[in-house]
Amino acid sequence: MFEKIAIVGVGLIGGSLARAVKEKRLGSVVVGLGRGETNLRKALELGVIDVMSLDLETGIRDADLVVLAAPVGSLGPLIRKIAPWVRPDAVVTDVGSVKKPVVSAAAAVFPEPLRFVGGHPIAGTEHSGVEASFASLFVSRKCILTPEEKTDPEATERVRALWEAVGSEVVRMDVETHDRILGFVSHLPHIVAYALVHAVGRADPGEDTLLPFTAGGFRDFTRIASSHPEMWRDICLWNRDPLLLALEAFEKVLQEFKDLITTGSGAGLEERFQEARRIRAGLPQPVSSGTHAGKS
Amino acid sequence: MFEKIAIVGVGLIGGSLARAVKEKRLGSVVVGLGRGETNLRKALELGVIDVMSLDLETGIRDADLVVLAAPVGSLGPLIRKIAPWVRPDAVVTDVGSVKKPVVSAAAAVFPEPLRFVGGHPIAGTEHSGVEASFASLFVSRKCILTPEEKTDPEATERVRALWEAVGSEVVRMDVETHDRILGFVSHLPHIVAYALVHAVGRADPGEDTLLPFTAGGFRDFTRIASSHPEMWRDICLWNRDPLLLALEAFEKVLQEFKDLITTGSGAGLEERFQEARRIRAGLPQPVSSGTHAGKS
Repeated sequence: MFEKIAIVGVGLIGGSLARAVKEKRLGSVVVGLGRGETNLRKALELGVIDVMSLDLETGIRDADLVVLAAPVGSLGPLIRKIAPWVRPDAVVTDVGSVKKPVVSAAAAVFPEPLRFVGGHPIAGTEHSGVEASFASLFVSRKCILTPEEKTDPEATERVRALWEAVGSEVVRMDVETHDRILGFVSHLPHIVAYALVHAVGRADPGEDTLLPFTAGGFRDFTRIASSHPEMWRDICLWNRDPLLLALEAFEKVLQEFKDLITTGSGAGLEERFQEARRIRAGLPQPVSSGTHAGKS
Repeated sequence: MFEKIAIVGVGLIGGSLARAVKEKRLGSVVVGLGRGETNLRKALELGVIDVMSLDLETGIRDADLVVLAAPVGSLGPLIRKIAPWVRPDAVVTDVGSVKKPVVSAAAAVFPEPLRFVGGHPIAGTEHSGVEASFASLFVSRKCILTPEEKTDPEATERVRALWEAVGSEVVRMDVETHDRILGFVSHLPHIVAYALVHAVGRADPGEDTLLPFTAGGFRDFTRIASSHPEMWRDICLWNRDPLLLALEAFEKVLQEFKDLITTGSGAGLEERFQEARRIRAGLPQPVSSGTHAGKS
């Protein structure tokens, strides 16, 4: 499918894609690039990549597919840096959780028709790093692509084929829709989980901390609050407006619930709890084992 | 340990206690009481109880231990109803998630020294009903007892011995502390989960619903939002003030996070996300298999 695939950032996502690409023989050689020498050595040792290089320029120059899997906050500068080295016929894509700043950065530096295609595999775990990577991470997961009018359709097709080959269901949508949806289904729950852990952690009813009295439900609930702090900082900064809108929508519901509790409206509460159960029952069913539950 | 144990309400908690009591031979006979004939027949068929009775009075009259495991909203009226039938030497306890209304109801009808001891095993799953019960539900879980000054210490000791015999770690605290702590570590997360499911369920960025784009993290996070709606309605009504205080504390943290996002304070966000990870890492470790994760 590809000759030389360059993956910049060989962490959980980049590493899992490298593993899947090698397993499915989708590229002749997979080159791992990035700033962390220790991490790249580890990826090489684990057989996740075929070749490592600390020299970004050399690594990019002869790749026909470049996958940017570095932290979302670094993607803008990274795109500007590599732009002069990308082969005119190469396809470039990324895996960032926020699409607008990445797609804008690419549109500003690459020639039209754009051979850059914004991408976002809806997959992950709360673990990070190449050690946590595994080839089946993307199987039966959705992968969102955000090509624009000025994007080369052939580039979009090649990126679609890549994700389908590693098992994903590819969905196309525009950049704004992606950022708005992810603001709700992923970024909002993370911020809520972080806030909940803080609220419980800070509350102290007197002599003792509350934490010994938390049980499995709270633990599950706050699992996502142990996700990568730098990544979530960047997501908050890069998807600020859609996230704030989602937070406001959530606060509105919370206020409604508070009013029902304050006025003792048992029927109103029960109706909403029934409805929540119905909504949740309609969620996509988990496909892989519990150990590798995806991030949302 | 006991002669005849009467359990009123043979659902997940009552049924699991009945199973554990029989497994550990803590009582000569376990009588299941309650209003649902179908449920009691099921409990009898499953061998969870030895005897069933639809006649509350007969069931209570010769029991030396009465465990009230009916829905928390029904415990006040239930206590007033059974009070005349309870043997003077019998011990009475409950498993309700809110303690103040239950303990107050008992104090109003039973003679002093009270042989009623408020109890709350911090255990459960998101499933309900006797079919979901299992004997090891309470193993290594905390069980909170809330005896008062006028409670007979011998009664407290017998209830403590019961819970320790089924594997729990018994902790004593006063009623107000219990309700305040549970308001934070259990009731608050449930309301937040319910509100989150509603916020995402109601949001619609245009042509399509968001739900297909949720992944494992959101699913885990909202697992507790499929808990029993009537039970959570009652908890909201009975623990109103402590729950509202917890909700306000949570909203304060959420507002702080919103401010950091609005002003783009990356360092402040990262610091809080790091701290959340540390707090969560200090939580009690899960003890049983994932299938039977406790409620919080």
